[in-house]
Amino acid sequence: MAKRVRTTPGPRGERGELAARILACARESFAEHGWAGTTIRAVARAADVDPALVYHYYRSKEDLLEAATTPPPGFLESVVEAWHGPTAELGDRLVRNLLAAWANDEYRVVLRSILLTAAHDAATRERLAQSVTLSLMGPAMIDLNDAERQVRAGLVASQLLGFAMLRYVWTVEPIASMSDADAIDHLAPTIQRYVDGA
Amino acid sequence: MAKRVRTTPGPRGERGELAARILACARESFAEHGWAGTTIRAVARAADVDPALVYHYYRSKEDLLEAATTPPPGFLESVVEAWHGPTAELGDRLVRNLLAAWANDEYRVVLRSILLTAAHDAATRERLAQSVTLSLMGPAMIDLNDAERQVRAGLVASQLLGFAMLRYVWTVEPIASMSDADAIDHLAPTIQRYVDGA
Repeated sequence: MAKRVRTTPGPRGERGELAARILACARESFAEHGWAGTTIRAVARAADVDPALVYHYYRSKEDLLEAATTPPPGFLESVVEAWHGPTAELGDRLVRNLLAAWANDEYRVVLRSILLTAAHDAATRERLAQSVTLSLMGPAMIDLNDAERQVRAGLVASQLLGFAMLRYVWTVEPIASMSDADAIDHLAPTIQRYVDGA
Repeated sequence: MAKRVRTTPGPRGERGELAARILACARESFAEHGWAGTTIRAVARAADVDPALVYHYYRSKEDLLEAATTPPPGFLESVVEAWHGPTAELGDRLVRNLLAAWANDEYRVVLRSILLTAAHDAATRERLAQSVTLSLMGPAMIDLNDAERQVRAGLVASQLLGFAMLRYVWTVEPIASMSDADAIDHLAPTIQRYVDGA
């Protein structure tokens, strides 16, 4: 890979900061303008760096999109973890995990960007669907065939996605300012019913 | 209002067709590029008309956005109608109404565009939230105070929105190709529980 870096990268700390700044600007651009409307040049301008530095860190627009729409480290693990433990409390744990993830400032900005980018970009939706499916299908504790598990995982995702869109992306009242306790009371039985197939 | 139409509009039928073509291009642009990324000039180019004609039909970018994100005639009425009839079957009727609306080619393209535009644009979300609230709050048959009704309407919206996003906008499997009968079986009890506050 040819490196054509004209901007001299600073010391290690500053380099990480530059990469993070580029990634943040890329997330914003993919979310607002989609794949077609995003250029390396515009991302570089927004991040106030030379375009060559964007290529240096992220190689191509494809790789930049992939980095921008990768769930934050720890997030998918937290979903998998939520699926463990007693099946009878899965609804409760999955809703609590959702609320905790969006309450985390670092996760929130990435999750929001992924949801918005997914609206534009089929490849992002595909990767997101795979992540969701993989992380939800894991629990061997639920004794079902794969087709049935995918249906239930999809139903769980539909309720959690719609709630997250209204509460955190669209910020529509009264969902946006509903207490966490009320959200759990309302949603957990729905999720549990989808898990149980009742 | 000054009319600066350089393109000579054709006979009546053709005029309606031009306005519809402009509106379709505007919907596409607001959905893909948001408010900031949409220009009258680009909409005119996409519709293959003179920009003056866009101003002639829609006066301003604000009015064009409003026209592009107005629910199709008949849609809100169908939602209100679904709220009438026996309360015990509300869940069933609201899900059937959603499926019927998205099965209608004319509605589908407008609903999709509204959902995508709402991701970008706060004013569109606000209008959408008002539409949802108004159309869901109507039924005096549900004996509740306003705050409680808004919470329940919001929960109903969260499930229907999430399902519509996965099935029709993101087209994620197995939700996308689930039969209508299965969708009703899975979702109606959820919606009913939110209505009943059970």
